[in-house]
Amino acid sequence: MDLQAVVDEIVAKMSPRLGEGKVADYIPELARVDPKQFGIAITTVDGQTYMAGDATVPFSIQSISKVFMLTLALGKMGESAWKRVGREPSGSSFNSIVQLEHEHGIPRNPFINAGAIVVTDMVLAGHKPREAIGEFLRFMRYLTDDDTVIIDAKVAKSEHLTGYRNFALANFMRGFGNLEHAVELVLGVYFHQCALAMNCVQLSRAGLYLANRGTNPLTGFSVVSPKRARRINALMLTCGHYDGSGDFAYHVGLPGKSGVGGGIMAIAPGKASIAVWSPGLNKVGNSALGSEALEMLTTRTGWSVFGH
Amino acid sequence: MDLQAVVDEIVAKMSPRLGEGKVADYIPELARVDPKQFGIAITTVDGQTYMAGDATVPFSIQSISKVFMLTLALGKMGESAWKRVGREPSGSSFNSIVQLEHEHGIPRNPFINAGAIVVTDMVLAGHKPREAIGEFLRFMRYLTDDDTVIIDAKVAKSEHLTGYRNFALANFMRGFGNLEHAVELVLGVYFHQCALAMNCVQLSRAGLYLANRGTNPLTGFSVVSPKRARRINALMLTCGHYDGSGDFAYHVGLPGKSGVGGGIMAIAPGKASIAVWSPGLNKVGNSALGSEALEMLTTRTGWSVFGH
Amino acid sequence: MDLQAVVDEIVAKMSPRLGEGKVADYIPELARVDPKQFGIAITTVDGQTYMAGDATVPFSIQSISKVFMLTLALGKMGESAWKRVGREPSGSSFNSIVQLEHEHGIPRNPFINAGAIVVTDMVLAGHKPREAIGEFLRFMRYLTDDDTVIIDAKVAKSEHLTGYRNFALANFMRGFGNLEHAVELVLGVYFHQCALAMNCVQLSRAGLYLANRGTNPLTGFSVVSPKRARRINALMLTCGHYDGSGDFAYHVGLPGKSGVGGGIMAIAPGKASIAVWSPGLNKVGNSALGSEALEMLTTRTGWSVFGH
Amino acid sequence: MDLQAVVDEIVAKMSPRLGEGKVADYIPELARVDPKQFGIAITTVDGQTYMAGDATVPFSIQSISKVFMLTLALGKMGESAWKRVGREPSGSSFNSIVQLEHEHGIPRNPFINAGAIVVTDMVLAGHKPREAIGEFLRFMRYLTDDDTVIIDAKVAKSEHLTGYRNFALANFMRGFGNLEHAVELVLGVYFHQCALAMNCVQLSRAGLYLANRGTNPLTGFSVVSPKRARRINALMLTCGHYDGSGDFAYHVGLPGKSGVGGGIMAIAPGKASIAVWSPGLNKVGNSALGSEALEMLTTRTGWSVFGH
Repeated sequence: MDLQAVVDEIVAKMSPRLGEGKVADYIPELARVDPKQFGIAITTVDGQTYMAGDATVPFSIQSISKVFMLTLALGKMGESAWKRVGREPSGSSFNSIVQLEHEHGIPRNPFINAGAIVVTDMVLAGHKPREAIGEFLRFMRYLTDDDTVIIDAKVAKSEHLTGYRNFALANFMRGFGNLEHAVELVLGVYFHQCALAMNCVQLSRAGLYLANRGTNPLTGFSVVSPKRARRINALMLTCGHYDGSGDFAYHVGLPGKSGVGGGIMAIAPGKASIAVWSPGLNKVGNSALGSEALEMLTTRTGWSVFGH
Repeated sequence: MDLQAVVDEIVAKMSPRLGEGKVADYIPELARVDPKQFGIAITTVDGQTYMAGDATVPFSIQSISKVFMLTLALGKMGESAWKRVGREPSGSSFNSIVQLEHEHGIPRNPFINAGAIVVTDMVLAGHKPREAIGEFLRFMRYLTDDDTVIIDAKVAKSEHLTGYRNFALANFMRGFGNLEHAVELVLGVYFHQCALAMNCVQLSRAGLYLANRGTNPLTGFSVVSPKRARRINALMLTCGHYDGSGDFAYHVGLPGKSGVGGGIMAIAPGKASIAVWSPGLNKVGNSALGSEALEMLTTRTGWSVFGH
Repeated sequence: MDLQAVVDEIVAKMSPRLGEGKVADYIPELARVDPKQFGIAITTVDGQTYMAGDATVPFSIQSISKVFMLTLALGKMGESAWKRVGREPSGSSFNSIVQLEHEHGIPRNPFINAGAIVVTDMVLAGHKPREAIGEFLRFMRYLTDDDTVIIDAKVAKSEHLTGYRNFALANFMRGFGNLEHAVELVLGVYFHQCALAMNCVQLSRAGLYLANRGTNPLTGFSVVSPKRARRINALMLTCGHYDGSGDFAYHVGLPGKSGVGGGIMAIAPGKASIAVWSPGLNKVGNSALGSEALEMLTTRTGWSVFGH
Repeated sequence: MDLQAVVDEIVAKMSPRLGEGKVADYIPELARVDPKQFGIAITTVDGQTYMAGDATVPFSIQSISKVFMLTLALGKMGESAWKRVGREPSGSSFNSIVQLEHEHGIPRNPFINAGAIVVTDMVLAGHKPREAIGEFLRFMRYLTDDDTVIIDAKVAKSEHLTGYRNFALANFMRGFGNLEHAVELVLGVYFHQCALAMNCVQLSRAGLYLANRGTNPLTGFSVVSPKRARRINALMLTCGHYDGSGDFAYHVGLPGKSGVGGGIMAIAPGKASIAVWSPGLNKVGNSALGSEALEMLTTRTGWSVFGH
């Protein structure tokens, strides 16, 4: 299959539609991004990268960072992490607090905000915030084998200043004893992890270990066991798109994780890691063109995990 | 891979544990089933069936019927079916009514009771209940290529007599205008579809079209398009085990649908359709030994859709 | 104080506004009532009745019947009735089912539909539906000392045919074991009690025992103890207007119970029983002009229980 | 009626039961209070005070302060205050956040924590926190005509350190734009108002304006209009005891407001203001002995607003 032709075709189809959807406006720094951009990159398990459109323009990965922080936390805590966060779809929006009250401060899964904050609290254990941020950044550079990946401090600050809902979630869980560190410290790390800037090429490489039984085939680095890679993929498929996870599975058929910056990382197990980016979001908060591009991709490639 | 050895090994592992879990007791007729039973059958896309344990003992498929009724309804309605039922995990138990009130009578997905009742209402369109039940039964015989499949009228009656919660759900949706037929008629069909009796061998054959791009390789019958087969698989993976769907995806990694009779049907796209059965249920209402058996199976076979 | 002048003045103020609000349309028979009507009657504890406007036009008392059925049920069950229904405001609409799921089938109070259905089930104990309806009708004639009070069978039938939500509530509670009789039987009585037709004069007399320490001063009949009268008044004040109870207490300051037929019964303890009626409802489902009329009344008379 | 005999009798009945209930332990400083205390004071509208038990021992008034802050806020904002906070019972616990999410950051009433935080934000307008605290303290001294009333800084600090849930509520509402000042500032004031220390005698005098048409009969100071006094009483009756408000109305029959410090202020309109205090709380978070004492009081005096 000519994957370069596939990504070129996707970019050609998306070009006239650039600007569709609605850029996230609750984080002022993100609201300033030019909506008329679209990029895609595929890195296959045999190490080839195919890219098209704005594939080398950096963007804020936002919630996609939750996958990588979960990987770090599972490395530290093992399966005991699941005592503090569940593994079920939430049936509500990314920043809902209702479920937390009904379930005594245990978030439904690590990919909604509340769950990711608990995961960050796990990674923070034994560290100062600055060190935890450093660990995360090193991990991302290790995954991408690229030291140019950086955290956008402006975005982190912008999120901090307007992150009332996250402060609410964190304080709420702290009240239930499900946060070991002070809210300010945990969110300090959290806002920085969300503010990581990557482009599609880098992001597609970062996720490659999940497509390749836990090992990055580009570097040979073993990141997680094959079993854990499968399990993280399972979590992404059931919970990776908030209350649009079912829809994404239905249309795209790949494990994936979206961010409000407009990025989506998707994993075709045994085949490739894919990154798409376009800032305009659909109604459930996932990149509008990005979601459609991935549906086109799986239609063309037959990569859906649910059959070809 | 020697699949017969795999199923034999699974039965050997499960034998000392027969009787674990809790048999569903809210349907009196089901409560009378001997809990110390376990069966498994795998039918591959090349037409071989491997079985072990109580694989030829018939049991009540209960909610597994929701997959087949959805297949029928999509055949009648096409994608317009999704105006009346969603495609997202519910984040609550199989018979919850809370979500229905919050979302104006539109059930979250076709695999919780409320959603399945709407689906039954779709299949009923233009028919008398007796005809719709007949259509369903014929469809199941067509899928299995086996005319001995029957509906257990005693079970249907038992469910009817104690099905207050389903009457509540149906009346609630009827109040919102999301049920076109009288509650009694729709539930009359619904209780009969749930009461279908099959054994593991039959069930594994019935699901084979979902593993084989919509076509039953045993008979050559085309049931749905490849795309629709993928999509039904996606729905099973995200929503097939109620509020244990995330957990099932995490541990087993296959699309699947469980029933309170203790059966589970799982699909390995491109490879096989699997049926397990053991009456004792775990905390979220899925067969306890059946769930574990499927985890053993995917560990041994590498069939998880999330990588091997 | 010249109460006749007060009611005349109220009618004069309301006359130009007849037709405001929205007539309940979910019960077809009620939707046919002429909205441009307004009546008021005050019966004082010394036995005088003051009336104005359409005070002798019969209307469907609907949920106001819940007060009288509760009186009957407490007579049968005593305080043990509170094991099956709570005494707290619900914080939700009259026909909400969410709370029932969260609180295991125990309705929050006897004045929301679910609670009233449980109360009807209590009154039904040991009776056939026809007998229970007869008991209720005799009780209402006894309270009003007026044998012309009747049940409007057409309205009862109309409610029965469209009462899906009540069937949902009743089945739901029956599933939790909080209904002792078959749903059809309980709702058969329930729809009849709601369909009682009275005019303002009759209704003001029916409530007089609640204003007069449990005894009807017109007939000398003792209905309940002074303590029970106080307690029923307390329940009406906190729960009598669904999710508008706080607002009614704030503006009117009297225990009261409204019905979707547009009637409101209000009690000024130690002083009088008041009935107002006007079919148009406000946003929370209480008579729009009726609520305002009562606010005018307490402003003019100083009868608010919260001070004058 | 010999009110001194009434309070003496109540203290005699309560003496053998001192220590019942459970002292609030989530605020460490409050957890240290000796549970075996009970005090009661009645101040009548003609200026007499009757006291018994530990009526002169100061305690933390906690949520009772919400009544006085509401009085201040209404003075500043008038009825426009109700755009930012509702007037309906919440149907949930004092610190629930569920309702806030469902109703877009508008708390149900000013007597749950979320509502009181909004009220504090109103009082803070145009002030520094220190000034707002000063204004509140002066107001309380004015109401009691007693300059010895103080704020317990230790308690305020203790609440601040453990007040995660209140930080969650405040951040949540700030995210919805329903808090004009920074969370830290608003809660700084809030924790201080809750930490006001008063004894029963002082508290009974502070509430006297609500029993006397808005005017303190001891000092002649006009605090609010008669209408506003009635309305605040109505709010206390429907919402003053969180999810035990219905029960309190049922058993006691007076407008009242409780605090987790074990105090309850109750108003008998036209007659008296009553304060009781005993640290042990019942299941819904109101003083166990205090609630019962008030029921005894209204039984003996016939002061229930629902009839005698």
